[in-house]
Amino acid sequence: MAQMQAVAKAHPGPGMEAVKAPVPNPGPRDVLIKVKATSICGTDVHIYKWDRWSQSRLKPPLIVGHEFAGEIIEVGSAVRPDEVQVGDYVSAESHIVCGTCQQCRLGKAHVCQNTRIIGVDRDGSYAEYVSIPVENAWRNPDDMPLPVASLQENFGNAVHTVSAADVRGKTVLMTGCGPAGMMAIPVARAFGAETIVVTDLSPYRLDLAKKVGADLALNPAEDNAVTLAQDAVRNKGFDVLLEMSGSPKALVQGLDLLKSGGEAALLGLAPNPLQDFDMNNLVIMKGITLHGIAGRRLWETWYQMRALLSSGAVDLAPIITHEFPLSRWQEAIETMASGKSGKIVLYPGS
Amino acid sequence: MAQMQAVAKAHPGPGMEAVKAPVPNPGPRDVLIKVKATSICGTDVHIYKWDRWSQSRLKPPLIVGHEFAGEIIEVGSAVRPDEVQVGDYVSAESHIVCGTCQQCRLGKAHVCQNTRIIGVDRDGSYAEYVSIPVENAWRNPDDMPLPVASLQENFGNAVHTVSAADVRGKTVLMTGCGPAGMMAIPVARAFGAETIVVTDLSPYRLDLAKKVGADLALNPAEDNAVTLAQDAVRNKGFDVLLEMSGSPKALVQGLDLLKSGGEAALLGLAPNPLQDFDMNNLVIMKGITLHGIAGRRLWETWYQMRALLSSGAVDLAPIITHEFPLSRWQEAIETMASGKSGKIVLYPGS
Amino acid sequence: MAQMQAVAKAHPGPGMEAVKAPVPNPGPRDVLIKVKATSICGTDVHIYKWDRWSQSRLKPPLIVGHEFAGEIIEVGSAVRPDEVQVGDYVSAESHIVCGTCQQCRLGKAHVCQNTRIIGVDRDGSYAEYVSIPVENAWRNPDDMPLPVASLQENFGNAVHTVSAADVRGKTVLMTGCGPAGMMAIPVARAFGAETIVVTDLSPYRLDLAKKVGADLALNPAEDNAVTLAQDAVRNKGFDVLLEMSGSPKALVQGLDLLKSGGEAALLGLAPNPLQDFDMNNLVIMKGITLHGIAGRRLWETWYQMRALLSSGAVDLAPIITHEFPLSRWQEAIETMASGKSGKIVLYPGS
Amino acid sequence: MAQMQAVAKAHPGPGMEAVKAPVPNPGPRDVLIKVKATSICGTDVHIYKWDRWSQSRLKPPLIVGHEFAGEIIEVGSAVRPDEVQVGDYVSAESHIVCGTCQQCRLGKAHVCQNTRIIGVDRDGSYAEYVSIPVENAWRNPDDMPLPVASLQENFGNAVHTVSAADVRGKTVLMTGCGPAGMMAIPVARAFGAETIVVTDLSPYRLDLAKKVGADLALNPAEDNAVTLAQDAVRNKGFDVLLEMSGSPKALVQGLDLLKSGGEAALLGLAPNPLQDFDMNNLVIMKGITLHGIAGRRLWETWYQMRALLSSGAVDLAPIITHEFPLSRWQEAIETMASGKSGKIVLYPGS
Repeated sequence: MAQMQAVAKAHPGPGMEAVKAPVPNPGPRDVLIKVKATSICGTDVHIYKWDRWSQSRLKPPLIVGHEFAGEIIEVGSAVRPDEVQVGDYVSAESHIVCGTCQQCRLGKAHVCQNTRIIGVDRDGSYAEYVSIPVENAWRNPDDMPLPVASLQENFGNAVHTVSAADVRGKTVLMTGCGPAGMMAIPVARAFGAETIVVTDLSPYRLDLAKKVGADLALNPAEDNAVTLAQDAVRNKGFDVLLEMSGSPKALVQGLDLLKSGGEAALLGLAPNPLQDFDMNNLVIMKGITLHGIAGRRLWETWYQMRALLSSGAVDLAPIITHEFPLSRWQEAIETMASGKSGKIVLYPGS
Repeated sequence: MAQMQAVAKAHPGPGMEAVKAPVPNPGPRDVLIKVKATSICGTDVHIYKWDRWSQSRLKPPLIVGHEFAGEIIEVGSAVRPDEVQVGDYVSAESHIVCGTCQQCRLGKAHVCQNTRIIGVDRDGSYAEYVSIPVENAWRNPDDMPLPVASLQENFGNAVHTVSAADVRGKTVLMTGCGPAGMMAIPVARAFGAETIVVTDLSPYRLDLAKKVGADLALNPAEDNAVTLAQDAVRNKGFDVLLEMSGSPKALVQGLDLLKSGGEAALLGLAPNPLQDFDMNNLVIMKGITLHGIAGRRLWETWYQMRALLSSGAVDLAPIITHEFPLSRWQEAIETMASGKSGKIVLYPGS
Repeated sequence: MAQMQAVAKAHPGPGMEAVKAPVPNPGPRDVLIKVKATSICGTDVHIYKWDRWSQSRLKPPLIVGHEFAGEIIEVGSAVRPDEVQVGDYVSAESHIVCGTCQQCRLGKAHVCQNTRIIGVDRDGSYAEYVSIPVENAWRNPDDMPLPVASLQENFGNAVHTVSAADVRGKTVLMTGCGPAGMMAIPVARAFGAETIVVTDLSPYRLDLAKKVGADLALNPAEDNAVTLAQDAVRNKGFDVLLEMSGSPKALVQGLDLLKSGGEAALLGLAPNPLQDFDMNNLVIMKGITLHGIAGRRLWETWYQMRALLSSGAVDLAPIITHEFPLSRWQEAIETMASGKSGKIVLYPGS
Repeated sequence: MAQMQAVAKAHPGPGMEAVKAPVPNPGPRDVLIKVKATSICGTDVHIYKWDRWSQSRLKPPLIVGHEFAGEIIEVGSAVRPDEVQVGDYVSAESHIVCGTCQQCRLGKAHVCQNTRIIGVDRDGSYAEYVSIPVENAWRNPDDMPLPVASLQENFGNAVHTVSAADVRGKTVLMTGCGPAGMMAIPVARAFGAETIVVTDLSPYRLDLAKKVGADLALNPAEDNAVTLAQDAVRNKGFDVLLEMSGSPKALVQGLDLLKSGGEAALLGLAPNPLQDFDMNNLVIMKGITLHGIAGRRLWETWYQMRALLSSGAVDLAPIITHEFPLSRWQEAIETMASGKSGKIVLYPGS
């Protein structure tokens, strides 16, 4: 059995390890992909640090990684040629859904009741090869750059969040300029936002946010942040809040700055349950609509991504700040954890 | 100047008083209404008790009451005959909106930035006569019973809440069988809900809820309530949550019982900010949409009410459990405060 | 190879024939169903008469029929137990969709680009047994009556049409009381329509329409039909038009009676292209939205049907006017063609 | 009484005339505007030519013109300072709506049942001064160029049409590059369209369309137009059709090129009723939704316009191809009628 290089959570506890693992053997409805690029998600950092969620969810040993692009080199016996073929250049939807639960049957597969996630619940893409169900493969245009193709999985969170609200001609406040937030900026612009104000505590990220299109990038810890945000929208409040930080303070401040009758899309996960959350004044009496955002819409979000990238409306290049060979995975993850990066891409076999 | 009987918050502090007050003099765009029925809102009970909200908002002396029906007996000089005429049988939208703020100009007058409320910010309807802007008068069909016409203002909260979600063919959990919740039951039925499960702590209310159409009425304090609720929907969770209680426990339990991808409409106001509210698991990761509900849509909700009542799809009669002459207002308010009532209607001049 | 009784279009040309055919042999992802009830669709009458559409689409010999219910007696080798099992009581979605075209991937499988229809493009259900892909089987509640289970396929057209518009608290005009129209009446009622006015040329159907819930049933050939329709909605026009007849006159009259800003759902297919169709005045300048309705939404419509039938909100029994053994298929089809029937159900093996 | 220069339809019949007219005297709820720029609408050309519609609608003598911008120089006695003030720089919504019909009360004032149009039903803006109801005045940002401010009324048709469909990440076919169509191109781009293909018979317009952002501009009279259009969307059809031409051929071709499940917004008015319009195959069986577009949404469209123009997302400058003093109105109208222009702006008093 052929062996490959991979990065795995070998045992419960902090850290990961470089390992040798057998090249996966695809089942009848699977495809085997030679991984050409795999990018680091915040989730991977959580797994590396072995946070509470990781401890409750992961069953080591497990090859991690779920954002990637590569080439199909083998297809299972029951894969039809009109689905995908050997040689296809693909990325992957990381959520493996059941197709039979009510959510799946109603076009809400992003909240499938039986979701299993690549690199979390089964072996992932920090490896030379990965095997996934054919239904999860997404063919990329030939001219899509590899690192862009890889990070579509995470870009999809940003696209899903922005498209959940109607930003056409609207003023938008986005709280949290981590990778998903950073990618949401050009999407909000592309979908017609009038004014985009963003917040983050990191000067590095605020700088990058301006480069990718924010009209105003504010540090909420500074005294005049709220005043400056309000000035930017003529003291009318914002039409739309995109909460990408998971910070309870950001959520409250964002809802407070939201116009009555506005809408908010929430992607960021708070580290703990909310305390002193004033649902009355922040949501109910203002007539606000809140959209909880999970994953990506299958496959609406992927079509939107293809359109945004192919038309040139969104350029993800400035958001990719670091690239490493897979062998330097540890340095890459530490860089990601430092907060001083955009997206980071790893290249197996290089 | 003619005098009339009224019930007022005469001074800051608990209680109300029967008073003599001058019959109002309508301005050029106002109409003077002879009040024929006025119903008691939970808000009136809060004002009576002089809770924190009342203390911060009301400026006594003030005639209270904002749900009513009556006859127009005088119109201001600038009221056009195609608007309303003397003799018209009307009810009133209690929110006096500005018409010029962005919310008003965008069809969201229910969250107008300059709303003033009848019986809260200006004299109300616990009186023989009340004067309101012509824009707030709503003509009733001649054959609408007086008590029903009166409580439309509150019925509108129920209709607005139910119509914010799509209940057609859906399973609905409604938490809180106070008056608004009670009225929401037949609305949810009329708009196509498949299964309606309701919760309340009061056996009196649970009984009444069954009478007006709930399929199952549960006391959440009883051990098997969650199991029974889940059984009623084949353990699939509910499609829609209507939160009408303001109880933080009910909100959490309701969201927990909601299906991934479902939606919730929140009308109930909690007495305090929420603690330990797990937005991640209750909303975000389940892909839930929350609608904060304020007031009534002008005038969409009123047209829906007329349709529901005229067609007989909703019968509010069983929800009206007590009727009193206005002179017995104190007994009426105490009855309302006891929780052992549906809607209570007062009749001035009787 | 076992033989079964069936009704087929054996050769091009008018008519059908009773035939002996081999019991189908299900493929790995198919299920074999013992047909217990199969109902007659208007399409079957077109096939019987061999109209232009039939001539262009059908490739005889072919067993016809696509509305049915029965019991699974065999499952293919690749069918999973969590999908369906032998003994399940099922109906079928008649559209076999590809699952891979853009429409399928975007939750619009009802307009799949590669649809094949049971009883039109492959052997159907006017037979003792029929084999269909497992994805097309829909499990029925055990207590659903056989004839009701059978006609769900057609009922789905009605549900899809009504749910495409928002009828909650609205006035509805439905043109055409054939079977789909007839079933749309209780659906519109269940989903909250205030007033339902229907039109048809057949006194038989107008009578039946009143029995199943129409507020007013009018013959448009009679002089005062428009006046009576307008009276029923206080001369305000209708909020919603449901066009189920395919009559160009009905379409024009319906759009003319529609309120500015209203919406129309069109299911009826006209025998010929429209002449003198005034799109300007009927649609554009009135700000009307038209929804073209094809098939049923997979699987939203099926869930709605289950809810409507299980809750008792819709009772299809009065719409089933005739039942025959399959051996009397010819008499059944002639009855259907006469216009003097609601739905007609055939029972194989009886 | 002060006199002013104006251009009027003085008598029934073709043509217009320069006239002297009294400066209007604003009523209590009116504002008097000094017209600084007024632009030519296609409707004005119809009035000039005295087409069938003009003959049925206009009652000469009448000052024409309804697209304009200027300065408020007098306000009526009942205009409040929080509405507008003398010195304000305003444009106008040309539809004077009643505010009391059901459409107005439901947020659909663009299809008000009692609309009266400036320059059609009452004196308009081809004049030094015009008086309009205060409700119709829209304050412009100070830095908005005069010609842009003037043509917002027509720009609103384009914005309303584009925003009626969801173009975010979608492929868009726009038929008809007259002024409204031309302005729709940058709007579709700003709201996130992936690919914009436009058609027109005029090479002049096709050239201009490419300059303002069309990806592909095709002459439908040329043989390969359909092939090229399909190539541009990988033979998948278009997601959205924007019909701005009024040409029946364009409508049919556009619907034919639309993807099943797609949507179309129709603004163009055909000169005659449609013949041989195949609603079955073009709309119903494809599951298409058609939006008839009338006027502009009050005031959603105006807010969207402000956002699109203020953010720089849309630049209307290239669409303004000619400017004239009002005194050269006849040359201006003839230029507009020639089809060899974008928008044309007239300047009174110059």
